Amino acid sequence: MRFNCDYSEGAHPRILNKLIETNLEQTVGYGDDDYCRQAAELIKARCRAPEADVHFLVGGTQTNLAVISACLRPHQGAVTADTGHINTHETGAIEATGHKVLTVASADGKITAAQVQEVYDAHYGDDSREHTVQPKLVYISNPTEVGTIYTREELTELSRICRKNGLILYMDGARLGYAICAEGSDLDLPAFAELCDVFYIGGTKTGALFGEALVITDNALKQDFRYIIKQKGGLLAKGRLLGLQFITLFEDDLYFDIARHTNEMAGIIKEACIKKGYRFLTESVTNQQFPIMPDRVLNKLKEKYEYSFWQKIGHAHSAVRFCTSWATEQKDVEQLAEDILNS
Amino acid sequence: MRFNCDYSEGAHPRILNKLIETNLEQTVGYGDDDYCRQAAELIKARCRAPEADVHFLVGGTQTNLAVISACLRPHQGAVTADTGHINTHETGAIEATGHKVLTVASADGKITAAQVQEVYDAHYGDDSREHTVQPKLVYISNPTEVGTIYTREELTELSRICRKNGLILYMDGARLGYAICAEGSDLDLPAFAELCDVFYIGGTKTGALFGEALVITDNALKQDFRYIIKQKGGLLAKGRLLGLQFITLFEDDLYFDIARHTNEMAGIIKEACIKKGYRFLTESVTNQQFPIMPDRVLNKLKEKYEYSFWQKIGHAHSAVRFCTSWATEQKDVEQLAEDILNS
Amino acid sequence: MRFNCDYSEGAHPRILNKLIETNLEQTVGYGDDDYCRQAAELIKARCRAPEADVHFLVGGTQTNLAVISACLRPHQGAVTADTGHINTHETGAIEATGHKVLTVASADGKITAAQVQEVYDAHYGDDSREHTVQPKLVYISNPTEVGTIYTREELTELSRICRKNGLILYMDGARLGYAICAEGSDLDLPAFAELCDVFYIGGTKTGALFGEALVITDNALKQDFRYIIKQKGGLLAKGRLLGLQFITLFEDDLYFDIARHTNEMAGIIKEACIKKGYRFLTESVTNQQFPIMPDRVLNKLKEKYEYSFWQKIGHAHSAVRFCTSWATEQKDVEQLAEDILNS
Amino acid sequence: MRFNCDYSEGAHPRILNKLIETNLEQTVGYGDDDYCRQAAELIKARCRAPEADVHFLVGGTQTNLAVISACLRPHQGAVTADTGHINTHETGAIEATGHKVLTVASADGKITAAQVQEVYDAHYGDDSREHTVQPKLVYISNPTEVGTIYTREELTELSRICRKNGLILYMDGARLGYAICAEGSDLDLPAFAELCDVFYIGGTKTGALFGEALVITDNALKQDFRYIIKQKGGLLAKGRLLGLQFITLFEDDLYFDIARHTNEMAGIIKEACIKKGYRFLTESVTNQQFPIMPDRVLNKLKEKYEYSFWQKIGHAHSAVRFCTSWATEQKDVEQLAEDILNS
Repeated sequence: MRFNCDYSEGAHPRILNKLIETNLEQTVGYGDDDYCRQAAELIKARCRAPEADVHFLVGGTQTNLAVISACLRPHQGAVTADTGHINTHETGAIEATGHKVLTVASADGKITAAQVQEVYDAHYGDDSREHTVQPKLVYISNPTEVGTIYTREELTELSRICRKNGLILYMDGARLGYAICAEGSDLDLPAFAELCDVFYIGGTKTGALFGEALVITDNALKQDFRYIIKQKGGLLAKGRLLGLQFITLFEDDLYFDIARHTNEMAGIIKEACIKKGYRFLTESVTNQQFPIMPDRVLNKLKEKYEYSFWQKIGHAHSAVRFCTSWATEQKDVEQLAEDILNS
Repeated sequence: MRFNCDYSEGAHPRILNKLIETNLEQTVGYGDDDYCRQAAELIKARCRAPEADVHFLVGGTQTNLAVISACLRPHQGAVTADTGHINTHETGAIEATGHKVLTVASADGKITAAQVQEVYDAHYGDDSREHTVQPKLVYISNPTEVGTIYTREELTELSRICRKNGLILYMDGARLGYAICAEGSDLDLPAFAELCDVFYIGGTKTGALFGEALVITDNALKQDFRYIIKQKGGLLAKGRLLGLQFITLFEDDLYFDIARHTNEMAGIIKEACIKKGYRFLTESVTNQQFPIMPDRVLNKLKEKYEYSFWQKIGHAHSAVRFCTSWATEQKDVEQLAEDILNS
Repeated sequence: MRFNCDYSEGAHPRILNKLIETNLEQTVGYGDDDYCRQAAELIKARCRAPEADVHFLVGGTQTNLAVISACLRPHQGAVTADTGHINTHETGAIEATGHKVLTVASADGKITAAQVQEVYDAHYGDDSREHTVQPKLVYISNPTEVGTIYTREELTELSRICRKNGLILYMDGARLGYAICAEGSDLDLPAFAELCDVFYIGGTKTGALFGEALVITDNALKQDFRYIIKQKGGLLAKGRLLGLQFITLFEDDLYFDIARHTNEMAGIIKEACIKKGYRFLTESVTNQQFPIMPDRVLNKLKEKYEYSFWQKIGHAHSAVRFCTSWATEQKDVEQLAEDILNS
Repeated sequence: MRFNCDYSEGAHPRILNKLIETNLEQTVGYGDDDYCRQAAELIKARCRAPEADVHFLVGGTQTNLAVISACLRPHQGAVTADTGHINTHETGAIEATGHKVLTVASADGKITAAQVQEVYDAHYGDDSREHTVQPKLVYISNPTEVGTIYTREELTELSRICRKNGLILYMDGARLGYAICAEGSDLDLPAFAELCDVFYIGGTKTGALFGEALVITDNALKQDFRYIIKQKGGLLAKGRLLGLQFITLFEDDLYFDIARHTNEMAGIIKEACIKKGYRFLTESVTNQQFPIMPDRVLNKLKEKYEYSFWQKIGHAHSAVRFCTSWATEQKDVEQLAEDILNS
């Protein structure tokens, strides 16, 4: 039983049904069709951002590299937490478009406004400015790569500091639904649309076959974005496949239903770990949980379950990742919880 | 009724069924799953190339830019017909990876061995070689962007000249099935595997939802190719979606059945144009036909049919493209043929 | 005796003297010194462009790639004559920064306003714009690579069309002095500053050891240009060497004196060829002359003189390039003229 | 009086003389002349590396970006100390060629073999390799950016680890002479040629007007390197200027005489600081000294001397850089030493 990621299965059945229903319809290609338009309208309405531009791309790395290369001039770079996906798991995709990734240390996967100000001050000072890359865009992920989420206060302050300094705030929302629906979350789509300049709502890890919906609210970043998508190989020929999936996710509350269910399933694992007295690598409130467990227990669990090894903790423990998905069934996760408790 | 491209509909029903059947199975991500492995084995067997590496990517531009950037050093470029897709319709995707596209003139979309030799001689001469880009890879498409196909003799000679001069021969097979199944075709998958160093078998335009199968036969080009795919944003999270589609296309003859049907449908349009005495822009034998028709007639047809405008011919005629797909029905194409004959 | 290029010798003695005189002075590095400031002021005054930004770079390819990569977004390209230096002799330097070079055919090395409009119309039309590179900058060289020069009328019209369409006009002035001082020239530095958005005044080929003075008049292109120079490896540590050379060239009329002398020396060769009845590849009025001569004669001349082979003309003639420089002495060029006449 | 860098003055008088003597000679351009050949032979002899390729470039950033982009495939990166010049002071020049710079923490500017092995192990492990950049080249500078030098033992071990793991060892020798001639140095040019795969001998900061001599000893890295230099804008038209300077530096011991003198001048400053009881940021044995001094003293010295601020140490001290050059005179440095002692 796989708990190692949230893209182990296909798509939510309603998404497949939508594809089946529309299969023989003829539409124009490359996302210029009515389904994509309709999906974009739905998302803009959900974001309360009628002026936003919405684009659909196939995957997250593609989206990140398209956005960052579209936003920056050659001498500018992107600031990220050292744990940021663009820094650690995209094979230098950003650098391959010519831009440096500037890192700030982060234990919980988040960046603070103070860190951004510090980076800004260090690079826009008086001396020899042109010898260093100019930080211009701040990349955050929410939830972060380690399952934590931003509070409204944190994001507001981050947004304020970015705007004060002329920096672009870009949020990678590969798992955005899980952040919105997390216990204690005080942020939603309208908040992201207001506080970020550009962000994406992930589909791949929330029940779609694939697909990310990019929302650009800053007018200065809108121009010619489709050229960039095409150039980077991200303009899907049968673009309606993306529109159809996002219609299904957002025409009612499917996207949030999926996110809530998935978080709840992860919560059952979390609770078992807490009961058992295990600590956690991070305070995750979303569908990825990072308990620190004895290696002896982990080896036992390995016989029945797939999880992701994260890092060694001391000589007899490890932090691992358990990840649930839209398809995770309660009976399976309860079985895992029981096995944790009995371990 | 759309005859303007071959990606107007969704996927062949058998492909959708395969996705439905396997939807709840859990597999590892990024194409490391058994379905992708199985699909790769099928394709290697069809190519009689057991040593080849097979990778699956989502789309054509992505595949072209991944291959070309993987094969070249910074000072090297790709030779193409001036009509080549990488030169005209990919928004500078190749240049965006740092490489010049060197063009040779072509009326029929094909490159000859003599042209390749000429480019080679012009760039590897004695004087000041380092002031010009080094042609290193020859990009061809088959069928070409204007529907023509290479003969075995032509491709063999092209391959010979490339190997003699140390050039890589790369074939873009976005519509490869239509070339293989064209009337008069004397080339097949084993021939391409033998004569090319790397080529791809297009799925998007032959009944898949999306997907291209890249076949690398030259050992020197195999190393670390998955890194390049990932870096360029082309590694699909739910990679099995690609494997599943190519299994369906190649576990029996579906790929070729689709291609034959689609060519036949285009043949009906072609025949009508010939009967009517219309000339053609190119001698297409595949699913794209480029008749030259009076603008008056075209305006009439426009009321019922979508086609693609190609270019003005004189002041009262135009070359246009009619394109059929796996989903084109005989009754529809016969209706179009009748309307052409009565025009 | 070398007539094959205009960079065969060192620097004009006055430039060397300037370097010697100031050798032990201490200045700040990277072009932030007073000599560079003073040189920039001189050039702005000569251009009657007090608001311009002036930067000094070491060489032409470096300048071209810095300018073009600074001016364009990733999906935009540079339009050039097919004979343009960036297209033929810079080893794909522009593409290496990610941008396509779009060519228009040119027999005389020049681009017309009509050609620019045609390229613009072809790429900014209604259909599928995002599938092609967006032409955004027009690159011209003056004199061109084949010695011809723009008239005021031609450049004014080119400038008008560029501005009308939002295109940047960039002039490569590697040999600009020779254009300004050519017989019949009706353009000068103030005209270039007014009609171009950015251009450079070449030093390397006009008596300097090395160095090009870049003049940016369009405010939108000024920001952060020093970052780009530094990133591309073009910020000379002992930057004052550039300032000192351009002070020497422009504090009085040395730059123009050199250009006039060099043109006159080329004129003597031209006249001999005309007298002898030789035709020319192009109507050059500058320091490069491209006569078409019998191969028999060329072989004879080769024993005493270096010239550059340009292209075969028929089976017994060739076009060649004779090039003079600041250091060319009248007695040498008269000897060559005599040898041509007696050939 | 400037002690802030080693490129405040022009060139050593013998270099200027060489340029004057040869000024009117005509040579072929772009470094294909006899002077460059002769300089290359001298350097190969000094390195006892008769098979090496030697190229001359204008500056350090240019050399670094040319080497690194020539050596790497798109998915590969360069490992450097976090203080490395390519990471901190080249405006993302390496990333602009598409490659990630991977950093390891370093207090003294050096990288250890163990750190390289650790980076290697972290990136070439079993899991998901293609999601991270492949470290392929190790960049070191010697002396480092903070004045320290590698011992033979350290460099030998670094070289061994690189070769064991198939990594390229590249040494930035912008100030290489100062490392070779430092007190206690046990490394020389033949050692660098043997232990590194590619390195450069800096001229700009050792008495030349400009220029770096790149030595490639690894055969696999030699091919087509001039193409890369040209493409990156680094092929100087009057290339002989580089050859002439390196002939002067290496035809007898001028290069080493300059380095020894410069180190000695820095030694006088160092000694004064030691006497006064000041600590140092690093144990520099070369021409850059990084004493930690009271801000009160520094403000006083500022009235007479230019130095570089490095970093705040506590609330009342700062680390600064004093830098000597070939032109530093003993009386000036003794004056500074006296002012330090009396401060």
